[in-house]
Amino acid sequence: MENLTEGLLATHLQELIASISDLDEGAMNKIQKRLDSLTKPLGSLGQLEHIAKQLGGIQQTSNPKISKKAVLLMAGDHGVVAERVSACPQEVTPQMAYNILSGGAGINVLARQAKAEVFITDVGVAFPLEGNFIHKRVANGTQNMTKGPAMTRQQALQALLVGAEVAAEKIAEGYNLFATGELGIGNTTPSSAIVALFTDSSIDDVVGRGTGIDDAGLLRKRRAIEKAFEINRPDKADALDVLTKVGGLEIAAIAGSILQAAASRVPIVIDGFISTAGALLAAKLAPKSTLFMIPSHGSVEIGHRRALTELGLEPVLHLNLRLGEGTGAVLTFYLVEAALHLLEEMATFADAGVCEQFT
Amino acid sequence: MENLTEGLLATHLQELIASISDLDEGAMNKIQKRLDSLTKPLGSLGQLEHIAKQLGGIQQTSNPKISKKAVLLMAGDHGVVAERVSACPQEVTPQMAYNILSGGAGINVLARQAKAEVFITDVGVAFPLEGNFIHKRVANGTQNMTKGPAMTRQQALQALLVGAEVAAEKIAEGYNLFATGELGIGNTTPSSAIVALFTDSSIDDVVGRGTGIDDAGLLRKRRAIEKAFEINRPDKADALDVLTKVGGLEIAAIAGSILQAAASRVPIVIDGFISTAGALLAAKLAPKSTLFMIPSHGSVEIGHRRALTELGLEPVLHLNLRLGEGTGAVLTFYLVEAALHLLEEMATFADAGVCEQFT
Repeated sequence: MENLTEGLLATHLQELIASISDLDEGAMNKIQKRLDSLTKPLGSLGQLEHIAKQLGGIQQTSNPKISKKAVLLMAGDHGVVAERVSACPQEVTPQMAYNILSGGAGINVLARQAKAEVFITDVGVAFPLEGNFIHKRVANGTQNMTKGPAMTRQQALQALLVGAEVAAEKIAEGYNLFATGELGIGNTTPSSAIVALFTDSSIDDVVGRGTGIDDAGLLRKRRAIEKAFEINRPDKADALDVLTKVGGLEIAAIAGSILQAAASRVPIVIDGFISTAGALLAAKLAPKSTLFMIPSHGSVEIGHRRALTELGLEPVLHLNLRLGEGTGAVLTFYLVEAALHLLEEMATFADAGVCEQFT
Repeated sequence: MENLTEGLLATHLQELIASISDLDEGAMNKIQKRLDSLTKPLGSLGQLEHIAKQLGGIQQTSNPKISKKAVLLMAGDHGVVAERVSACPQEVTPQMAYNILSGGAGINVLARQAKAEVFITDVGVAFPLEGNFIHKRVANGTQNMTKGPAMTRQQALQALLVGAEVAAEKIAEGYNLFATGELGIGNTTPSSAIVALFTDSSIDDVVGRGTGIDDAGLLRKRRAIEKAFEINRPDKADALDVLTKVGGLEIAAIAGSILQAAASRVPIVIDGFISTAGALLAAKLAPKSTLFMIPSHGSVEIGHRRALTELGLEPVLHLNLRLGEGTGAVLTFYLVEAALHLLEEMATFADAGVCEQFT
């Protein structure tokens, strides 16, 4: 893909976006009718009813099923760490990538519990990585966005299409429920920049402590975003321009995986702050992609709520997580499956001889 | 138990309350130390870390385990339905009890997914019930609290001890994680009364639509509670007086099951609005019982948030559920197990060669 011209990459992306269509209203209406026949007060299963309908609308059936589940973890590094915006040294990105590969990270534990598989794609780590990763590196990390654009427009397109490609491969292998996830030291900084632009928020309202930076670091982080905006003048009406100038390679890949999931009619659960920045990018590129997103948790990062509101997503888990890696999203798989079990297994009023006035 | 005098029942209850002690700080400190050694930013697993510590404090070990899980469903009817406070006829209580017994209700589906068992206790249904229930009926429903006390003080004590007895039996059978649950047409009305008294709230602030009553019904519900307060003058400093005058038999049993769980050092997940009214009762009788409670979901019922705040519990699931039956609590079992898996299975910084500055 690195050999394609920017024009050809842009054409690929436009084709992907154009292939995203609507939810199947007919299937959703059938599911609503079934939900209303089940032995419970009308609408009393709340968001679980909404998820059941959404899955039917996505899969175009009144009997949606989940079989294989995957966490699509995107890894990338960030030149902006030179501004000391993170509490962690950049070496932690490859260290954690190897930790995930050997099954010891939080996401591995939760994915095992959820019977889901974890796939890590190297979209742009700054250090050599060997082993059973999906090797699709676009660059050795981004450039420092306080000095100029984080990446070229061609790299932004490449990274978006890497995400789409990985999702397409997993869909071809039969996976039909995804969680987004990421790792990359410093990646709350570009995420905050993206969220500030796409939600018309002040920098202060969307910059949080990431893995745990102190007050001085928080000021450096805000200042880095201010400088990046001053020097790059990202055009918020052009999502690709925002990504190029103040984004991240793994954030691009998250957006790309969402676009491909939407195009292939596969539901994708959106993890925390960084993933939601990726989801915002996807939504700005293709507004209908939000129809295929399932919200997960409300993170501690202060900009997360704004980003979710912009997407029209309401988080279902409130656990004060701030780990990333797809941890909140993979926990939500259980709720998605609960919604489908309820739809399929609950007795109807007629079956159970329960008075319909219960509704 | 119905043959015991009120004095003897009160003595039993006092003994139960007196046997509730503190969490094991030593075990919790060990767990905190382990959590801080795991490959993640410090504290980044949020409430899951809190749950892991709580379980260790309850089980008095740095290696807490969950084996058998049960939903303790308490069923009871309410004389106050004569005031037309519910959208449903009272016949739905036994109909739903049979539906649960035959495995067709929402709670059955979710309990199967959670690999938990459901036990229904008839604490005070107003109609005959046959079959594989736990038969411990104290009365054929409560009296209409707008005309006088909902029950006698002796019945209140009996119903509390029924809940404790059921929990004790299940603990003896090896269950070590409980969910509270209930069914009983009309039971949001006594729950609202209890929550209003114990949270010093106005009636309007804690009365919601239950299974789905209309505006006129909502007014009748508020008026019924006003009348019940006027005629009975419950003493909110005396939890047993509140229960007797404006409570419910299944609500009493929920409180009793919580007290027994606390006394036997077994964690108990608190379901929605009615269960939380039961939890408030337990907390007023034995403040330390809150240490053994695990919050689950934030229900649609407007009084729920106030009740949870009074208990110091923060819900982890936001699904707009309003079904009861223990559905939100049993969904939370998954998160409790996730907390323990993370504690046990994640790699440490030393294991994984990850730089500790990640914290």
